[in-house]
Amino acid sequence: MKLYSYFRSSTSYRTRIALNLKGLEYELAPVHLLRDGGEQHGESYRTVNPSQLVPALVDEDLTITQSLAIMEYLDEVHPVMPLLPQDAAGRARVRALALTVACEIHPLANLRVLQHLKGAMGLSEEVKNEWQQHWVKEGLAMLEAHLARDSETGRFCHGDTPTMADCCLVPQVFNAQRVGVDVEAYPNIARIYANCSELPAFKAAHPAQQPDAE
Amino acid sequence: MKLYSYFRSSTSYRTRIALNLKGLEYELAPVHLLRDGGEQHGESYRTVNPSQLVPALVDEDLTITQSLAIMEYLDEVHPVMPLLPQDAAGRARVRALALTVACEIHPLANLRVLQHLKGAMGLSEEVKNEWQQHWVKEGLAMLEAHLARDSETGRFCHGDTPTMADCCLVPQVFNAQRVGVDVEAYPNIARIYANCSELPAFKAAHPAQQPDAE
Repeated sequence: MKLYSYFRSSTSYRTRIALNLKGLEYELAPVHLLRDGGEQHGESYRTVNPSQLVPALVDEDLTITQSLAIMEYLDEVHPVMPLLPQDAAGRARVRALALTVACEIHPLANLRVLQHLKGAMGLSEEVKNEWQQHWVKEGLAMLEAHLARDSETGRFCHGDTPTMADCCLVPQVFNAQRVGVDVEAYPNIARIYANCSELPAFKAAHPAQQPDAE
Repeated sequence: MKLYSYFRSSTSYRTRIALNLKGLEYELAPVHLLRDGGEQHGESYRTVNPSQLVPALVDEDLTITQSLAIMEYLDEVHPVMPLLPQDAAGRARVRALALTVACEIHPLANLRVLQHLKGAMGLSEEVKNEWQQHWVKEGLAMLEAHLARDSETGRFCHGDTPTMADCCLVPQVFNAQRVGVDVEAYPNIARIYANCSELPAFKAAHPAQQPDAE
């Protein structure tokens, strides 16, 4: 398999963790989101993913886009070390936690949105930073509220083994720290992040460990 | 089952379509997103969904949040009239199309973001409308690029029966039309929207048909 990835992209980071948790070998194809106006917009990558977004996973003649669809696919095709619980209720909970990151936080604070705020809208660096912090904090508060309330929360988001929800949580926390959000304000999130960070699968997926890291 | 829903919320609309496609009976519990500063923020609804977002589905003692998690759950527990294809490749494609709406369009143009642009950021109605149109157009262009390229596109997003992708496409088109985006510029999307609109499950889920419609 080949993963098109950018070291700092949190959606790419999710899929690297998932591949590592399952112990799957993959070739990494870096796509530089900032070089030459963004390699994701180039003709070459557009044939891989017309959405011009990373990541994309190529498995023989199949190309899969969207990080959550990639993780679901990996879980169906390589069921060892499942990323979802076995029961429908647990699966729904893990998906909802993963989607809270994927739909309520990341889309608002990702590169293309930040570029639009400063570029087309002409807003200042300060306003851009406030925007980013605002949505990251609001989204982490949602996630924390669920984790704090639910008895299924364990060493990880759902029980004591990592799931798709942890694959989303960790890159979002990494991003939150980069933009100066104090993650200790969200005790369950901070605790789960620390627990994940001890695992080799998470360590190896870290942006700093990627061949395209700067 | 009980669905907490707001007639105009496109995420609620997705789940109404999915319930109808499967022929499942449900009680509708309206949550008014604008009344009294937003009923989703009230103490009563926060016990249902701490994220303070609609929809939420209650199935006996289980509460499920996030529209895509709700649709996956319905598909697992009520497999008749599947919302996903049987093959892993097809499932990945349908999920990626659904996620393109759920992650690349809706989060940027939903109520809480528009309220923030005008409220906390003090931007004008005109700038808010430009913002909304920009992201809806950019996201629909992504979706159209996939639909136009892939041979699996049929009468609906994936072949000739509706899937989770269509449950996401239709509410997004409804929203796009409301904000003045010309959907005819996206021929596959416009065609699939028209095909879906003929089906009773989609008709009955339309915002105008809801008991809380205004």
